Amino acid sequence: MVDFGNIKELTYEQLEVLAVELRQELLNVVSKNGGHLASNLGAVELTLALHKCYNPGNDKIIWDVGHQSYVHKMLTGRNLENLRTFGGVSGFTRTSESDTDCYDSGHSSTSISTALGYAYARDLKGEDYNVVAVIGDGAMTGGLAFEALNNVSRLKSNVTIVLNDNEMSISKNVGGMSKYLSRIRTGKFYHNAKKRVKDRFGETPFGKSLKHIKDTIKFMFLNDNLFEMLGITTLGPVDGHNVRELTTVFNMAKNIDAPVLVHVITKKGAGYQFAEQNPSKFHGIGRFDLNTGEVLNNDLTVDKPSKVFGETLTQLAEKNNKVVAITAAMPDGTGLKEFAKKYKDRFFDVGIAEGHAVTFAGGLARGGFIPVVAVYSSFLQRAYDNIVHDVAMRNLHVVFAVDRAGLVGEDGESHHGLLDMAYFLSMPNIAVLSPCNNEILKQMLLFAVNDYNGPVAIRYPRSILDCEKYDDFVFGKGCIIREGKDVTVVTSGSCVNKVKDAVNIADVDAEIIDIRTIKPIDKELLLQSYGKTGKIITVEDGTIFGGLGSVVEQVIGGKVIKVGYDNDVTVTHGSINDLEKHYGTDAKSIADIILKEVNGN
Amino acid sequence: MVDFGNIKELTYEQLEVLAVELRQELLNVVSKNGGHLASNLGAVELTLALHKCYNPGNDKIIWDVGHQSYVHKMLTGRNLENLRTFGGVSGFTRTSESDTDCYDSGHSSTSISTALGYAYARDLKGEDYNVVAVIGDGAMTGGLAFEALNNVSRLKSNVTIVLNDNEMSISKNVGGMSKYLSRIRTGKFYHNAKKRVKDRFGETPFGKSLKHIKDTIKFMFLNDNLFEMLGITTLGPVDGHNVRELTTVFNMAKNIDAPVLVHVITKKGAGYQFAEQNPSKFHGIGRFDLNTGEVLNNDLTVDKPSKVFGETLTQLAEKNNKVVAITAAMPDGTGLKEFAKKYKDRFFDVGIAEGHAVTFAGGLARGGFIPVVAVYSSFLQRAYDNIVHDVAMRNLHVVFAVDRAGLVGEDGESHHGLLDMAYFLSMPNIAVLSPCNNEILKQMLLFAVNDYNGPVAIRYPRSILDCEKYDDFVFGKGCIIREGKDVTVVTSGSCVNKVKDAVNIADVDAEIIDIRTIKPIDKELLLQSYGKTGKIITVEDGTIFGGLGSVVEQVIGGKVIKVGYDNDVTVTHGSINDLEKHYGTDAKSIADIILKEVNGN
Repeated sequence: MVDFGNIKELTYEQLEVLAVELRQELLNVVSKNGGHLASNLGAVELTLALHKCYNPGNDKIIWDVGHQSYVHKMLTGRNLENLRTFGGVSGFTRTSESDTDCYDSGHSSTSISTALGYAYARDLKGEDYNVVAVIGDGAMTGGLAFEALNNVSRLKSNVTIVLNDNEMSISKNVGGMSKYLSRIRTGKFYHNAKKRVKDRFGETPFGKSLKHIKDTIKFMFLNDNLFEMLGITTLGPVDGHNVRELTTVFNMAKNIDAPVLVHVITKKGAGYQFAEQNPSKFHGIGRFDLNTGEVLNNDLTVDKPSKVFGETLTQLAEKNNKVVAITAAMPDGTGLKEFAKKYKDRFFDVGIAEGHAVTFAGGLARGGFIPVVAVYSSFLQRAYDNIVHDVAMRNLHVVFAVDRAGLVGEDGESHHGLLDMAYFLSMPNIAVLSPCNNEILKQMLLFAVNDYNGPVAIRYPRSILDCEKYDDFVFGKGCIIREGKDVTVVTSGSCVNKVKDAVNIADVDAEIIDIRTIKPIDKELLLQSYGKTGKIITVEDGTIFGGLGSVVEQVIGGKVIKVGYDNDVTVTHGSINDLEKHYGTDAKSIADIILKEVNGN
Repeated sequence: MVDFGNIKELTYEQLEVLAVELRQELLNVVSKNGGHLASNLGAVELTLALHKCYNPGNDKIIWDVGHQSYVHKMLTGRNLENLRTFGGVSGFTRTSESDTDCYDSGHSSTSISTALGYAYARDLKGEDYNVVAVIGDGAMTGGLAFEALNNVSRLKSNVTIVLNDNEMSISKNVGGMSKYLSRIRTGKFYHNAKKRVKDRFGETPFGKSLKHIKDTIKFMFLNDNLFEMLGITTLGPVDGHNVRELTTVFNMAKNIDAPVLVHVITKKGAGYQFAEQNPSKFHGIGRFDLNTGEVLNNDLTVDKPSKVFGETLTQLAEKNNKVVAITAAMPDGTGLKEFAKKYKDRFFDVGIAEGHAVTFAGGLARGGFIPVVAVYSSFLQRAYDNIVHDVAMRNLHVVFAVDRAGLVGEDGESHHGLLDMAYFLSMPNIAVLSPCNNEILKQMLLFAVNDYNGPVAIRYPRSILDCEKYDDFVFGKGCIIREGKDVTVVTSGSCVNKVKDAVNIADVDAEIIDIRTIKPIDKELLLQSYGKTGKIITVEDGTIFGGLGSVVEQVIGGKVIKVGYDNDVTVTHGSINDLEKHYGTDAKSIADIILKEVNGN
C-alpha cells in the first residue's frame, strides 16, 4: 500500500500528483475485487480537500451511502487489497474499521439526519468539532434527506452539507430537484463563480474575519436558491475537481455559525475514460479488464434472475397493456433497461424513493393498471409502511419483484436481503413466492401479473438460480423434489440446490420439499410429509424468526429445526461461499444438521 | 341528516349559509363521538369549493390523511351520527363507503404519490378526469410528500395539489418549509392577491381561453417560489375561507395542462372559538362539552400510559443530562409537552418525519446522548429501515417509546398498532418490553434509559394499564401472576387483566404468566410452566404471526394456541370493547379458548 503521508502538508501541485496515484490505486483495486468505481473516481479531489480542511476522527465526516469512501479509506491507512472480501475492508464506512469512520453507512439519504444528530450532541455537550455530511444529488431524491433538510435550519450552529452533484444517482438522476440543480450548473453563475473565488481569495488562508466571509459569501448566493428558502446558507457551485477551490469553500463553510450547504459539481467516473462514458455501468461493478473496461465474465451457464425478470416482463407487457413497471433508481440493476426503452410511457424510475414507488403503484393500481415494483430486498425495507398502508391493507393488485433477496455477498451487511420474508409475512394479504430456477421465475411472474388479483411478492437472489426443472409452478403448491422417510427438509429459491447437495453429503433418506409459495403455504403437503418422517428441517436465505421456518412451525405445531440467519446477527461482507461457510448455512453445515436430526443427536 | 342538495346550483351567498350549517353539524357530531375537529372546521369552504368545481366520484379528490374529509362525507350523503363507532362511518376516507372516496387514507403524506398514480393511469388509458390531492402543510414535512413532489414535474398533464396551509401539523408546524410558507403568508403578495383575483375575474366564469389564464397566472406567481423551482406551476396563496376565490383558482388550476400547486391559507378550527384558540387540543379529541370546550372525562381511575411516560421521562431527564427526547409532530399525544417546556434544548419535534426522527436519534446516540424516540406504533412503521439500518444493526442505545401499541379503537385500521412486535422481533438486537401497569412502565423506562445499553422498545397502549402490582420488573424475567396446573397462559401489557378475567370466567386452574420482556424472552420460566401444564396459550394485542405467540412457539417447540389478530385481517374502527368482541379477543372469547384447550376439544 502507498503511504500518502500527511496531506495537510502537501502543496496543491503535490495533491494533483496524489490524485493521479489515488485514481490508479482505485482502478487497480476495483478492477480486481469489483466494487463502486465511478463514484469514487468522481470524489478523489473532494476527499483530498475534506482531508486537508478537516481532521477525520475528531471532525465527523459522514459519507452518505458510503460507497464513495474508498479514497477516504486509503488516506486513513486502510489496505484496500482485500476490499469487500470476507475479513477484508468493507465497501462502506465502518466504525469498527477506523475512528475516522464515524457512522456505519450503506443505505442512501441517511447522512444529513446523522450529521444533525452529531451537531446537536456536540452543542449540547459544549464540544468543538466539525460535522460534515457528503451527499450525492441522487441521494437527495430520497425523502429522508428532505426531512433532514427541513430540520437543518433550526440548528443554531454549523453543520456543513456537501452536495456532491454529478447528475447521477446510480443511473441518470431524475425529477424536479435534478432539473433544478441542472439549471444552476448550466447558469452563468457557475461559470463566473470559479473566477470570483480565485479573485477574492487567491491563495491567502483566511477564516478569521466572519464579517468579511459573510460579505463574500453573498456574492456566491443564488438569490432564488431552493436551499436558502429552506433556511440553509448555500455556497457554490464550485468545481469538485479543483482541490484549491474546494479547500477555499470548505474553510469558508466551517467558519459560518449556521448550517451551510456547499454545492460541488463533480464528474462521475472522472479520470477513467470508460467510466466517464458509462458511469452507470461502473457504479457498482464486478471484476473488469482495466484496458478495455470489459467486465470479466464468470462464464455463467444460466442467466441471472434480474435478466430473466426483465425479459419476461417486457414480453408480458407486449400482450398486456395494463402492465407498468416502477423502479427506484435501478433500471439497470433490476433488469428493466429494455422495458424502459420499449415501453417508455409505462416505465417509471422515481429516483431513490422507494416509499413513493410503492404508494405511487397503489395509485396506478386504483387507476386500473398492474404495477410491477422492482426494488432490491434491503432497499424495499424503506417502503414498509407504504406496502402495508397503500397496497396490502387495500388488497391492491401490485406485484413486488424483490431482487437481491438473501445474501448479496460483497456489499455486505446493509445490502443483504434477509428481512423481506419476515416483513412480508407479517403484512396482510401479500402472497410470497420464491422460484428455484429461471423457468419457475417466469411462470411465477406470468401468474402474478395475469392470473392473480392482489398484492404478491416474488423474491429472487442476486446470484443464479440453476436448480433443474421439476413440476410446473402451481400457486400454493409445494413440490417434492426427492421422496424420503427419515426427515423432511423444506426449502425454496436459492437454497434448493444446496439442500440437495446437503442430503447427498449426509447420505440419508430425506424428503426434500421445494415449497415455492411461502404464503399461502401448502399445509397439506407439509403435514403429509411430516406425518411420514416425523422430523422437519427448514432451510432459507433469510432471518430464522419470522420467515419460512416460523411459518412451517406454525403449521406443524411441533419442533422445527430452522436453518437460516440469526435475527440478532448482522451478516458481514464477503463472497457468498465464504459467508455461508462462516454462518453455517453451506451444504456441509446443513448436512451435519440433517445427520444430527436423523440420528436423534 | 341534512340534505345539502346539489351545491353546484347554490349561489355563493347560499354556500355561506351552508358553511354555517356544516360547522354546526360537525360540532354536534364530534362533540358526541369524538374525532378530528379543528382540521375539518378549517376545511369547510375548501371542501365546498372542491365540490363546486369538481365531480367527486368521476374526478379523484385525494384527501391526505383523510381526517379532514368529514364535510366531504356529509356532502356525499353519509350519515355521520355513528361516526367512528363500530359499523358506523369511518373517520377517514374509505373506498368501501362511497365511490367518491377514491382511496383509503389514514397515514400522512401519501396523497401526492397516489394522485400521481391516478394521473398517469388516466393519461395512459386516455381517460378524462381531474385528479386533486389535498395536503396540509404539516404533511408536507413528510419525506414521502417530497419524493412525490420531486416526481410531479415529469407529468405532462394536469394534477392539482391543494396545499392546505394552516401553520399546523397536529401541533405547531416546524422546520424550514414551514418558515418558508410563513414568509409567503406574511408577504405583501398575499395581501394583494385577494384584490387582484377579484379585480381580474369578478364573477365571470372562465376557463376557455388558456392563453388568458396563463397570462393571469403570471401575476399570481411568486418569482422565487420553491415549488416552481421543482417544476410545479404554483397559484396563490388564496384565502381558504372564501369559496368564491377558491372556486376561481380551482377552475384556473384544472385548465392548466401541467401539474399545479394551489397554496390555500386556512385557519385550523375556524368558526369555533375554542378550537381556533387551541387547535392542537381540538385536532383529535374525545367527547366534549360544546358550550365550554371542555373534554368530557371518562373518570379515569389511573393515568394513561402517555402521561406516565412523559412525567417519568421528565423526572429522569433531571438526573440524567444525557437524556434527549424526540417526537414526530406529537408532543401532546406522546405526553412530552412538559418535557418540551422544561428541557427545551433536549427536546426535538421533527415534524411528521418518523424516518428522520430515528436516523437523527442514531446520530445523537453516536454523539454520546441517550435518545428516547416517542412515536405511535403504527406511525413508527414508516421508520422500519431507519430502525434497522441506523440503530439496530449498530446496536446503538436508543429507546423507542412505542405509544398506541395494540388496538387504538375509533381511529381504526390505519392507526391500530398491531405490527410493532412483528417488526421489532425480526430486527437485530432490539429488546422489546411490555408493561402491565404504570408502575412497571416507570421501572422499564428507568431501566431502558439508565441501565441498558442498546436499542430497546417499550410498547404500551392508548388505553389505561391498570393491572394490580405484582413483582418489580426484572429485565428478561417473566412474572407468574397466578399459579395453576391445567394450562399456561402467556400474555403481557394491556392483555394481562383480560386474561385474568378470562381465567375467572373459564373457572379452570390456569397458570398466568405476565411475560413483560418479549425479547429476550424468559425461556426458563416458559419451559418450566409448560413442563407442568403441558398446554400453552398466548394472548397478545398484535398480529398472531411474528409476535409473542411465535416467540413462545419457537421456545416450546410444540403446539401453541395463539390469541391475537390474524395477520390477514384489517381491523376496523370502533370502541376497543366492540372490536375485541367482534374479533374474538375479549375475555369471554378467550375463556372459551382456554376451556376448549383444557378439556381437550
